[in-house]
Amino acid sequence: MTQPLLRVLQGETLDKPPVWFMRQAGRFLPEYRAVRAKATFEQLLNDSDLAAEVTLQPIRRFPQIDGAIIFSDILVILDALGCEVTIPEGGPRIGRTLDQIALDRPLDETVFEPVCTAIGKVKKELPAKVTMLGFAGAPWTLLAYGIEGKGSKSWAGAKAFLHQEPVLARKWLDKLADAAARLLNLHIGAGAQGVQLFDTWAGELDAEDYATFALPAVERTLSQVTAAPTLFFARTGYLPDSLNQLPCQGLAVPWQVPIAEARRRFPGKVLQGNLDPIALLAGPEVARKKARTIVDVMKGHPHIFNLGHGLVPETDPAVVAAVLDEVKA
Amino acid sequence: MTQPLLRVLQGETLDKPPVWFMRQAGRFLPEYRAVRAKATFEQLLNDSDLAAEVTLQPIRRFPQIDGAIIFSDILVILDALGCEVTIPEGGPRIGRTLDQIALDRPLDETVFEPVCTAIGKVKKELPAKVTMLGFAGAPWTLLAYGIEGKGSKSWAGAKAFLHQEPVLARKWLDKLADAAARLLNLHIGAGAQGVQLFDTWAGELDAEDYATFALPAVERTLSQVTAAPTLFFARTGYLPDSLNQLPCQGLAVPWQVPIAEARRRFPGKVLQGNLDPIALLAGPEVARKKARTIVDVMKGHPHIFNLGHGLVPETDPAVVAAVLDEVKA
Repeated sequence: MTQPLLRVLQGETLDKPPVWFMRQAGRFLPEYRAVRAKATFEQLLNDSDLAAEVTLQPIRRFPQIDGAIIFSDILVILDALGCEVTIPEGGPRIGRTLDQIALDRPLDETVFEPVCTAIGKVKKELPAKVTMLGFAGAPWTLLAYGIEGKGSKSWAGAKAFLHQEPVLARKWLDKLADAAARLLNLHIGAGAQGVQLFDTWAGELDAEDYATFALPAVERTLSQVTAAPTLFFARTGYLPDSLNQLPCQGLAVPWQVPIAEARRRFPGKVLQGNLDPIALLAGPEVARKKARTIVDVMKGHPHIFNLGHGLVPETDPAVVAAVLDEVKA
Repeated sequence: MTQPLLRVLQGETLDKPPVWFMRQAGRFLPEYRAVRAKATFEQLLNDSDLAAEVTLQPIRRFPQIDGAIIFSDILVILDALGCEVTIPEGGPRIGRTLDQIALDRPLDETVFEPVCTAIGKVKKELPAKVTMLGFAGAPWTLLAYGIEGKGSKSWAGAKAFLHQEPVLARKWLDKLADAAARLLNLHIGAGAQGVQLFDTWAGELDAEDYATFALPAVERTLSQVTAAPTLFFARTGYLPDSLNQLPCQGLAVPWQVPIAEARRRFPGKVLQGNLDPIALLAGPEVARKKARTIVDVMKGHPHIFNLGHGLVPETDPAVVAAVLDEVKA
């Protein structure tokens, strides 16, 4: 088995870290924008040919990339629960919030068929050294969208829901946890060799609420995913020590936390990250310098180079290429 | 000297913590909205009677509050440097960004006259036990606005400026640091008994850039303010240990960081905070419970109860009253 990314996910330390970028199948690429000029985001989600195409675009452009993350969206789980998710330009909108949905409503797994089909199509085209990655949204992040019905500045409704309806909130978090596990296992069944769970709104909860509500649900998801290595990404400046105990192989480190500190605090985990995506907007020299620091700090520890959050649309692909050169130098 | 807030700022530990709220002179109060119905935000900034009035409103409504922070805006310093700041409903706008302004341009201190006059007027009306507080924006936060010209999601321009023009950036940060110190000293001269420096966009820089660029400028400001106790608020989930070495009496702890952890990590500092302002939107019981936890954790350590960020406009004043009852119980 010669895939560098998979080797590191399994705990090996390599001389040069494998690398991929969160949101690498996205708007910073002109070829992605060309596809999107002819199809909506939702059409991409539901058309396995288009989803496969945009997944492969960064792999074709940047031969140094070691991982292909399937094009999809974290909210497909809410859609499969009947939330009627649409994703217009202004951000996701939910037709029916979770409080309008019966807790025992079964997951409509047909919603997951296009992404699983797309994984199969991508795998046929992937260079042998590139690892196929699947992903899902974490329970709290899904609950936050599912209660608010759209993105929010403060997530006040979702945060209040945890305290005003703690029993119901836990039941929904458990259900979302099981749904996320099911989706990740379907990704793995379709060919994903590693999966990442995204807790995009982890940083919106205080540490006590995160520990009480969000983390047990994350653990519930991860403990059900055993057929491939798992990565967990809590997007927060305050990364709790308790992530050490999660049943996952790796942690994706947000850019706010110095990776040297993450190395000290999470000694048993593969670490992924963690360049600030905005550093790439400061030009190739700055991005290279910061990437080099991260690679050097992580020498001797299992490390997957990545950003500490997703690539932003304004990123110049030439700067991405410069970072790849630096990481692989 | 019997003011509880001032006693704690000077290092005393009290049985019941003194309390004030960031953004207590603001839109959550109907009486503030009544003033704003007749005057713009900028008119309030420039009219010492109106500024004094809205500063006093929360003190009149909530007799348990121990601190009155003068109504003003962190961007007055940029205005005094010639940035032509306006503050329409959509957020601040800057007519001339810092790169269009000569580095040796003197600070127009007449801009600070209304706020200093307002401090004098408030002091005449304040109950004897209430401490008068002044404030200023921290150098990096001012630079970020001064370069971007308005609020930003990513602050990409300001972050890039640090790396592309590091010499010039340091010169501006030094100048902004001196301006912030001058303003805080003017506040103190006018009657402020304690001052807080707000680094609102601290969390936008990675730890290395914060340490390299922002923190030396914060130190430069704080070291020039010696006539009254100082508090520093870095709004970030990732609170660096190096804040321990800053020449300030207190740290305002952002709500993301558990205050028990802050107590361990910053043993030499008075700590202020740190209830999540969004917790107040979940109703009085939730807000009381979380406030109680904070007060209990901080027993035996110099503590000023506050939020971990400003009150939001949607806050019910009755919940603020409930939190005050709990803290003073």
